[in-house]
Amino acid sequence: MNNYLDIKVAKRAGFCFGVKRAVEMAFNCANERSIVYSLGPIIHNPQVVEKLMSHGVYPIDEIDINKLKEGDTIIIRTHGISLKIFKELEKKKLNIIDATCPFVKKAQEYASLLREKGYQVMIVGDKDHPEVKGLMSYAGENAVLVKSEKIKVKLTKKVGIVVQTTQTKDLLKQIVNKTLDNAKELVIYNTICDSTYLRLKETVSLANRVDKMFVVGGKNSANTTQLTKLCISKKIPTYHIETSKEINKNWLKNIKSVGITAGASTPDWIIDEVKNCIKDIGGKV
Amino acid sequence: MNNYLDIKVAKRAGFCFGVKRAVEMAFNCANERSIVYSLGPIIHNPQVVEKLMSHGVYPIDEIDINKLKEGDTIIIRTHGISLKIFKELEKKKLNIIDATCPFVKKAQEYASLLREKGYQVMIVGDKDHPEVKGLMSYAGENAVLVKSEKIKVKLTKKVGIVVQTTQTKDLLKQIVNKTLDNAKELVIYNTICDSTYLRLKETVSLANRVDKMFVVGGKNSANTTQLTKLCISKKIPTYHIETSKEINKNWLKNIKSVGITAGASTPDWIIDEVKNCIKDIGGKV
Repeated sequence: MNNYLDIKVAKRAGFCFGVKRAVEMAFNCANERSIVYSLGPIIHNPQVVEKLMSHGVYPIDEIDINKLKEGDTIIIRTHGISLKIFKELEKKKLNIIDATCPFVKKAQEYASLLREKGYQVMIVGDKDHPEVKGLMSYAGENAVLVKSEKIKVKLTKKVGIVVQTTQTKDLLKQIVNKTLDNAKELVIYNTICDSTYLRLKETVSLANRVDKMFVVGGKNSANTTQLTKLCISKKIPTYHIETSKEINKNWLKNIKSVGITAGASTPDWIIDEVKNCIKDIGGKV
Repeated sequence: MNNYLDIKVAKRAGFCFGVKRAVEMAFNCANERSIVYSLGPIIHNPQVVEKLMSHGVYPIDEIDINKLKEGDTIIIRTHGISLKIFKELEKKKLNIIDATCPFVKKAQEYASLLREKGYQVMIVGDKDHPEVKGLMSYAGENAVLVKSEKIKVKLTKKVGIVVQTTQTKDLLKQIVNKTLDNAKELVIYNTICDSTYLRLKETVSLANRVDKMFVVGGKNSANTTQLTKLCISKKIPTYHIETSKEINKNWLKNIKSVGITAGASTPDWIIDEVKNCIKDIGGKV
């Protein structure tokens, strides 16, 4: 039996500024109206989405925009949307609640600006991530998407870089380094969100001080998955869980310390539940 | 005795575009007028400067501008001059022949542009080099001078970089990498001259294929000195000479091949003399 299981929770675990703002906007919106829609889940966390649904906030797919009527309320989630879809929403005269993270909004503006100034816009990010799809639409037809220093597209001499807010500075540096082989004029908007960077940094520091790590958050959350991968890369046994229900008591056998961190889309109440569950089991194994 | 001394001369040894242009401008100018002045030696090569003097082109120091009279002809050398001195020349109503290398001129324009747009301008280069002194004057009072990745000055979030034309891309990359630790908006004008880069690249390739290297050019020429250092860093025995007179025949004993390269300010006739001298000695040692 292990009475001394030391549980450390990362200070920056959970909601970031943009997610907190968007979730609050969604709940406020739901309180004022009987039914509202969100274009895709507000954030990448199934439990929060479920809770919002119980308050009348329903995620819909882009393809279903046509079914909405003039005056219907639609919330744009933290990741933002493409310029094309934004114009469609306006055309349909929907009541748009724009909960795009202000940092993502800024990145979209930079992408537009670079395009207008004649730069070949390079978006550094994950192809399938909704934030990146949005950024690419602002960057224009000649934009290139890059995810590693192995740049396969032909670059011009005049390149402008905008980064998905949740990417790492190391990746940006590698790509800038490579781009400088050819570019004569290079503009870099480092739109990486500090909170992501600090969360990653804090997670490494925590992982190095514990026997096992628990990363809490949606399995569909890119930044939660990134935290998990980072812990594993540090050779720390790590579990990516969405809720406390997934915890197996055997995981806590023969260890003295546990670290908990969580993605930007994980609410405090889920982190607390996980902490309490580990505490309960910890005293019994 | 060594009958088979193989002598390879780098294709890009000697005058670059800007130096060729400036020297031609100086000779043309001298042919048209009885006496002309150059602000400092036209290029960093004592032999060329001596030849120009015999044609009536006299280098003067900045401090002696006061001694010139209205209508006197003054040539601005390839490295360019500071904005302050340029204004002084104009104020004195001198006949200005601007032989600033067009690539240096472009770098000066970028430095001005970045300053006007509110960037903290960073000049990457050697503090005492005349080109850098000129660039710094265009970059304004808040400009910072950086020569290595160990950046000692405090940087703002909005930085614009201009590079001395003869620096290396590797150095630029190291400095950009470091600057990205803090900057949120970074504009890089890669004003490194391709001819410098290609000359360095070709020199490494040549140095790796010969027993000894001869680097020909002014001892006061930064880019010639850079070539010498590069060869030495590749562990190739290397001699930096200004003319064939410095060659010691013992240097050519027991070797089979020699490489010759030269800085951007070294004229062809000096390179040819060196080549012929090595050829002559090579057959006798």
